Amino acid sequence: MVIDFNGHLVPPEAVRIDPFDRGFTLGDGIFESLRVTGGQVEFAEEHLDRLNRAAEVTAMPLPFTRSEILVRMVRLIAATEMADAALRLMVSRGPAARGVAAPPPEDCRPTVVMALHPLPPTRNAAVAAVVATVTRRNEFSPFSRVKAAPYLDSIVALEEAKGKDAQDAVLLNTQGRVASACYANLFAVIGGRLVTPPLADGPLPGVTRGRVLAALDGAEEGMSADDLAGAEEIFLTNSFGIRSVTALDGRPLPEGPMAAKAREIAG
Amino acid sequence: MVIDFNGHLVPPEAVRIDPFDRGFTLGDGIFESLRVTGGQVEFAEEHLDRLNRAAEVTAMPLPFTRSEILVRMVRLIAATEMADAALRLMVSRGPAARGVAAPPPEDCRPTVVMALHPLPPTRNAAVAAVVATVTRRNEFSPFSRVKAAPYLDSIVALEEAKGKDAQDAVLLNTQGRVASACYANLFAVIGGRLVTPPLADGPLPGVTRGRVLAALDGAEEGMSADDLAGAEEIFLTNSFGIRSVTALDGRPLPEGPMAAKAREIAG
Repeated sequence: MVIDFNGHLVPPEAVRIDPFDRGFTLGDGIFESLRVTGGQVEFAEEHLDRLNRAAEVTAMPLPFTRSEILVRMVRLIAATEMADAALRLMVSRGPAARGVAAPPPEDCRPTVVMALHPLPPTRNAAVAAVVATVTRRNEFSPFSRVKAAPYLDSIVALEEAKGKDAQDAVLLNTQGRVASACYANLFAVIGGRLVTPPLADGPLPGVTRGRVLAALDGAEEGMSADDLAGAEEIFLTNSFGIRSVTALDGRPLPEGPMAAKAREIAG
Repeated sequence: MVIDFNGHLVPPEAVRIDPFDRGFTLGDGIFESLRVTGGQVEFAEEHLDRLNRAAEVTAMPLPFTRSEILVRMVRLIAATEMADAALRLMVSRGPAARGVAAPPPEDCRPTVVMALHPLPPTRNAAVAAVVATVTRRNEFSPFSRVKAAPYLDSIVALEEAKGKDAQDAVLLNTQGRVASACYANLFAVIGGRLVTPPLADGPLPGVTRGRVLAALDGAEEGMSADDLAGAEEIFLTNSFGIRSVTALDGRPLPEGPMAAKAREIAG
């Protein structure tokens, strides 16, 4: 097995991340997770667009062009011979002196790690979910709209779910409106209509979210936890699959027809 | 120069952080920054209390006891012969399979890095500041009250400050109330009274904040950006120093007597 480390194909055990890399010390990094199917990267342009937006809002200089990174993806897939996989592309600020304010970003040399991983086995599995009470998603942060390293709020919300015998959690935003699940967008059928929270409410603008929204003629519409509690169907989408929510805070929900349609679209 | 890596004293260049360490991939880590003066760690108990709270809210198993880590601190200071320094103690979740939900936390082996760094030369320097407009601090997240790796909101707010010829930024919370500066607590003198935002508004419960509040008989009181704009004096505190704010959004402020008093207390 090899991974791409700063443009070199090397075994992961040969890769050394510096203990003073700001990705490690401060969560100062951005990433994308892409699906590889039959040796092809799916929706690479959409994911690279979002990576570019993340680089802009973090003032992170990307040390590669779009075509360079596409070539590297192809090379990595060929080298690992994984035709169906999750491709994770991570860019951190690189090693720096201690302190948030320490280094002029222009002096940093970003660290780039790209690796193929098995697809998550539960990517289309139904889940029980809870509404997270321990934390909320910050719709005022530009990092709610790009994939940035800090996932601690999702991590503690997932822990809360596990403690309540559930597999995922719904994150509310700071106004108490529904934002998303821990690592997936959320769709609900309410009063017969397919709706998903608008970007202003703090969900990640997921590639699969956009495709499902367009193909199933859904609407971006804000919803409260109470609205969600009355939903006829709820499902979660990300680049790897569609998961039906079979219970929310203990209330059973059917694995509905809309999730099945979304699964056909997502492939 | 040596650092402590999982309990071993080694040169930093010999330390290898795994590219799949969740501290690097997901910002899944907690830390503390302590001041070392004359070879002694200052307020170690207070900092270790806060680290324990951070470990609790992140379900991060600390792979050392309080006395073990104190012994290691002493050993590191002796080995590096840095009598006055910033000691950074970082604990990340350790290497894991891809995906936020992938590993049961109980299966993780945390990574511990402890290193001494030079004290920041600007630790008592006056700064111009702006009120950040690009992001806000999430007072609903438990991570506003512990030192967790994700500092991206502070990082982009600092970038905004630099773009406006300032050296720090005031972070508002999601309700538009003043929370803190980018890596320091904020105090203001308003109507002759010394005030600092209450913890409910989202500042980190800083060790120096607590000491200054008690010694100078200050009050925890919420404030809006407008309240702050009318302040007679503003200063920023952290474990390393007290910085007077000499301008806020371009409005000049005096380096007042309260900051000087705080500096005497902080030492």
